[in-house]
Amino acid sequence: MFVAMNNFDVVPEREADFEQIWRERESHLQETPGFVEFALLRGDTPGRYISHSSWESEQAFMDWTRSEAFVKGHQQGSLKGILSGPPIVTTFESVVHETPTSRVVIDSEPDGSRKGFQLSH
Amino acid sequence: MFVAMNNFDVVPEREADFEQIWRERESHLQETPGFVEFALLRGDTPGRYISHSSWESEQAFMDWTRSEAFVKGHQQGSLKGILSGPPIVTTFESVVHETPTSRVVIDSEPDGSRKGFQLSH
Repeated sequence: MFVAMNNFDVVPEREADFEQIWRERESHLQETPGFVEFALLRGDTPGRYISHSSWESEQAFMDWTRSEAFVKGHQQGSLKGILSGPPIVTTFESVVHETPTSRVVIDSEPDGSRKGFQLSH
Repeated sequence: MFVAMNNFDVVPEREADFEQIWRERESHLQETPGFVEFALLRGDTPGRYISHSSWESEQAFMDWTRSEAFVKGHQQGSLKGILSGPPIVTTFESVVHETPTSRVVIDSEPDGSRKGFQLSH
């Protein structure tokens, strides 16, 4: 499983506005191949939010970032004045993944020279 | 949905050892009430890992931290010399949660005075 997190630093007084944009937004994710799960996560300190999405593979995520659904999803609602800095994307590969009825462990070794996520269009 | 993330800063040369501890560990999560999902996530830069768990509620998570399963799960494998700093726990509440077949939106307002996660035994 591949996970992408977009870390948002929200102006504390604008948290309600930020959340409302996400509540009203049509994500177009459910029609996206390889989509597993999405959550907008409200952190435990003011201003901290993560948009968290899980995918069957890194390729599925990359294909989504280049899709029409991605462009449509990101045209809705302006974050101008709501963020106190640029969002930061970090990505992850699950090494162990458990649900109440399953456990998946991957065997791949970590790549010691990995350089962080780069969005390439 | 309540999410707890434990952020690990792993000595880059010890990543394989760190992962192996998690691969071999019995989490005892599947027997835990309110457990939804767990993943050990390997980050996109060397040394960065998150243990990510989802719960039906904050109460289910707190109950787990006080349970025998939690103690048993955390007695396995020493992280001595593997981490370059103490793990940092951050917790989250999902505002919007989507799967391929569902969409849940919560109505609660953010609490502007929330102070971050405190583990209380």
